Amino acid sequence: MHKTETKEFRNQWIEFIYQLQDDICGTLEQEDGKSIFSNEEWSREEGKGGGGLSKVIENGNVFEKGGVNTSVVFGKVTDIMRKNMTLNGVKWFACGISIVLHPVNPFVPTIHCNYRMFELYDENDEVSDRWFGGGTDLTPYYLLEEDVVHFHHAYKNVCDKFDPSFYPSFKKDCDNYFVNTHRNNERRGIGGIFYDHQRPDEKQNLDFWMNFSKACANAFIPSYLPIVQKRKNIPFNTNQKHWQEIRRGRYVEFNLLHDRGTIFGLKTNGRTESILMSLPPTVRFEYNYQPQSGSEEDKLLQVCLIPREWVGDI
Amino acid sequence: MHKTETKEFRNQWIEFIYQLQDDICGTLEQEDGKSIFSNEEWSREEGKGGGGLSKVIENGNVFEKGGVNTSVVFGKVTDIMRKNMTLNGVKWFACGISIVLHPVNPFVPTIHCNYRMFELYDENDEVSDRWFGGGTDLTPYYLLEEDVVHFHHAYKNVCDKFDPSFYPSFKKDCDNYFVNTHRNNERRGIGGIFYDHQRPDEKQNLDFWMNFSKACANAFIPSYLPIVQKRKNIPFNTNQKHWQEIRRGRYVEFNLLHDRGTIFGLKTNGRTESILMSLPPTVRFEYNYQPQSGSEEDKLLQVCLIPREWVGDI
Repeated sequence: MHKTETKEFRNQWIEFIYQLQDDICGTLEQEDGKSIFSNEEWSREEGKGGGGLSKVIENGNVFEKGGVNTSVVFGKVTDIMRKNMTLNGVKWFACGISIVLHPVNPFVPTIHCNYRMFELYDENDEVSDRWFGGGTDLTPYYLLEEDVVHFHHAYKNVCDKFDPSFYPSFKKDCDNYFVNTHRNNERRGIGGIFYDHQRPDEKQNLDFWMNFSKACANAFIPSYLPIVQKRKNIPFNTNQKHWQEIRRGRYVEFNLLHDRGTIFGLKTNGRTESILMSLPPTVRFEYNYQPQSGSEEDKLLQVCLIPREWVGDI
Repeated sequence: MHKTETKEFRNQWIEFIYQLQDDICGTLEQEDGKSIFSNEEWSREEGKGGGGLSKVIENGNVFEKGGVNTSVVFGKVTDIMRKNMTLNGVKWFACGISIVLHPVNPFVPTIHCNYRMFELYDENDEVSDRWFGGGTDLTPYYLLEEDVVHFHHAYKNVCDKFDPSFYPSFKKDCDNYFVNTHRNNERRGIGGIFYDHQRPDEKQNLDFWMNFSKACANAFIPSYLPIVQKRKNIPFNTNQKHWQEIRRGRYVEFNLLHDRGTIFGLKTNGRTESILMSLPPTVRFEYNYQPQSGSEEDKLLQVCLIPREWVGDI
């Protein structure tokens, strides 16, 4: 690929994520009916390239806290990147969209997604390596099976259009990634899909991976919105809110103890507020909290401890 | 030191921490007037030696959540320990007391302390290395200077009885340890003292370090209780509670992102509930929260950003 093609390819992805950010925020605002997204454009510190646009919603009818962030960043490959990411290159470029939504109602799940492109350049500014990564995963507080099946179906449908091996493989990778290893391998939620370091080969070229990533990112709203609409007005009591806040504690533990993106971002002087936008608004940590065996709370916990298959072959 | 002396020395410290745990819990229960400490004795999994006693208080008049934990643990030096702690030995032994108290009232500071002895043994079960470590640090939500001065004075007095160089040195080490590097080097609180890997030499033998550690641990109650008594009944409003929960968020960030003991404990299959007992009961994470410039909240933030000297030479 020539430099102009490289630039064009990159720009195609950048345009896509900015447009998607706008579309998603518009849809979510309409659904919320009260709060709107604030806009914060930021640039990286001196000597570091790029920046991003953080869009944050707080204290809504539906969304207690959420963020839809884009970033387009680049720089020199540093020693810490060479060591932690085993990167061989002189310069890097990364561009992605990242979404986390923490709803008010404990019957509406928290959702997270991230879709990104990464490029490495050699000393002649030619691309020496390039890959896509991403995923969407769901964190319910109560197990409403039809919602979980709807969500997994949505992503299986997208995957199957590209390669029938993707969904089983990326579903498993998701189950294996969002794990609180310090809590008996309890998962953060009920999973979804997760893929990383997807490079072009003879079979699946660069356009394939960009199109796949676009399709996955576009599936965010149809995978989630129907669940929000169905559950946002279910009445809930203080015990159910309490349980949501306990589970949010596990979300915090995963993000700060285990999530590679969070830890790496904070260690390499990423924008702290944009990275930690993912943390839930109100959280509880109680000593040795255990839901009653057989309760609705326990049912959720059990599927976090032992991941299930939610959709079979169609 | 012969094996019998070694055992005697170790037992002296074990007896001390168990007795101190009882004494401190009794004093705190009396101060609280409502809740009492629960007791949970635990043992390590198969093939790993030792255990501990976790004493936890929740939903008290004064203490919203707190723990006073002792542990006496030992085992073989594993590869992860060799790598992370650069330990050269065949077996290890560790024994310590660890306390965290999260008060209800935002005018009462959170306090943390930890005092521990560590031993390494060679292939003949002879002690090949041994050190003490510890520290006490204070995390206020509002800056009441006389409280901070009282607290630092208490620890300076203890240190000065052993070596006049200790307080300035250990105070600085404390300021340099409890740092949220991802938040512009904001400190968790207003510090205290922190020391680690203190080994016997010609000047300061083993008994010296045990006596110093005992004196520091014994200073916990006199350094803190007068502050609790003075502040526990100050009326507070929801805004002040809100600020306390925001600051508790920073406490969580430090413990899960930066605290060596927490991260190492969780990665080496320590008892999760006892380690994470340190997390505050209710916590808030808000996007880009900034206190108003010049407010009481901002005054606290400023001394966390730029540590101060609280006691001069007497």
